[in-house]
Amino acid sequence: MRQVYVSGSYLPESEARISVFDRGFLFADGVYEVTLVLDGKLVDFASHMARLRRSLRELDMPFSLTEADLLKIHRELIGRNNVSEGLVYLQITRGAADRDFIFPTRDTPNTVVLFTQEKAFVENPVAIRGQHVITVEDLRWRRCDIKTVQLLYPSMAKMQAKSRGADDAWLVRDGYVTEGSSNNAHIVTSDGTIVTRDLSSDILHGITRAVVLQCASELHLRVEERPFTVVEARLATEAFSTSSSGLVNPVVRMDGAPIGNGLPGVVTRRLRQIYLDRSRASAI
Amino acid sequence: MRQVYVSGSYLPESEARISVFDRGFLFADGVYEVTLVLDGKLVDFASHMARLRRSLRELDMPFSLTEADLLKIHRELIGRNNVSEGLVYLQITRGAADRDFIFPTRDTPNTVVLFTQEKAFVENPVAIRGQHVITVEDLRWRRCDIKTVQLLYPSMAKMQAKSRGADDAWLVRDGYVTEGSSNNAHIVTSDGTIVTRDLSSDILHGITRAVVLQCASELHLRVEERPFTVVEARLATEAFSTSSSGLVNPVVRMDGAPIGNGLPGVVTRRLRQIYLDRSRASAI
Repeated sequence: MRQVYVSGSYLPESEARISVFDRGFLFADGVYEVTLVLDGKLVDFASHMARLRRSLRELDMPFSLTEADLLKIHRELIGRNNVSEGLVYLQITRGAADRDFIFPTRDTPNTVVLFTQEKAFVENPVAIRGQHVITVEDLRWRRCDIKTVQLLYPSMAKMQAKSRGADDAWLVRDGYVTEGSSNNAHIVTSDGTIVTRDLSSDILHGITRAVVLQCASELHLRVEERPFTVVEARLATEAFSTSSSGLVNPVVRMDGAPIGNGLPGVVTRRLRQIYLDRSRASAI
Repeated sequence: MRQVYVSGSYLPESEARISVFDRGFLFADGVYEVTLVLDGKLVDFASHMARLRRSLRELDMPFSLTEADLLKIHRELIGRNNVSEGLVYLQITRGAADRDFIFPTRDTPNTVVLFTQEKAFVENPVAIRGQHVITVEDLRWRRCDIKTVQLLYPSMAKMQAKSRGADDAWLVRDGYVTEGSSNNAHIVTSDGTIVTRDLSSDILHGITRAVVLQCASELHLRVEERPFTVVEARLATEAFSTSSSGLVNPVVRMDGAPIGNGLPGVVTRRLRQIYLDRSRASAI
């Protein structure tokens, strides 16, 4: 049985429990990170930890474990669950306290949960055929740059995609794509420019996004960081999403119509390969 | 020790635990209700259950317990914890399943949590002196009509109020007040009209709000359901908030400046008394 880490203990998943008074449960007062595991090693771990610290800071959430502590727990779980390819999920909440909108005292112990999921992210059939996305209105809160567990709307959007025979939803505000349900959204225009929304509180500051844009610039591809419309996306030559678990994922249909020739594009496939090579080489 | 209900069992609060895989914890995929208890009896219980059913329906969340089942649990908890005045908190989530944005299968058992809190809501000193509120931008998601546990922003807003020496925050979108952090917002204009935002997906459809407006209309007070601006609120003669735990709560200062004469208003005090009398008479 899978082992789960809960605030200091490694437990079988059936015994991994938290208080009903946990603020993660009552107020969605929690942040998380998902780190890709390739060949049993962690991809972009330091960047995930930097973003985690930022999320905690933005929410004024005290947290005492160090990056070294967290690395140790990540590795211990990978070992115990013998994960070769998959992910490590980490969630930190403000801890358990009697229900009150006012934060509990700063010495309230955090709840810290980590678990693993094994999954073939590299040989993912959807990445080979390309994703079909629908567009839905972005109704989320306006601090999407903080990686909180307020994920109900993205989950609803993904269900809507599924019910329409698609794989994912791209969220749209005022006619502009913000991001995917759990990934950043990118298009490639007819002149080969990669267009991706600029960083702001409207989107998650994706770690895979940053690495892929770095790869693109090293390949001397033109990158424009700016909002793009749904119409631009429909007329794009290629489209793709980036995330820790999706890596670089081609998007080949939007709202039922093909993007480009309806097949994973050349730029997308190239970036996926380079991202993978780079991740394997730098994983720790 | 307080007894808590968790999915079929009554447990001491220290043993009231849920899985770390609960969707309430991982995705904020849960809804809740808070019912006022006066003299050991439940206020507006049927209305809370009607709103709960609506929240579940909007989220397409299966749920099999009946209103009679839930009433029995509410009463059992009030009895076990000997609550004379306070509240019963109820939360329902889509249950525990390995983490996935896609909803688990419809036969996944819900997590059902209920607990009580004892508190003197009637002889509440803040209700006697009147609340001080600040205004903050409303950054919440756009389905505030669904009573989900995505409460991080209201909690942050309340902390901001506290740090500025105030009691609560009124949320503002495009210059118009939507509602309080966990209550509906109302003003009384110089001609005695009660102005309160009309129902939409921008606000919670407050049960106390509805009862109080009903009381107001029985008193032949004029009521206008429409958005009002922060400026209108500052110039109002009176202001108050309504909620299950706050009842009818006078608001006497906004952003540091007095509203009206800076004391709880006549209309507010009258409505609070009538609401209390009516609640005591109709509680079950």
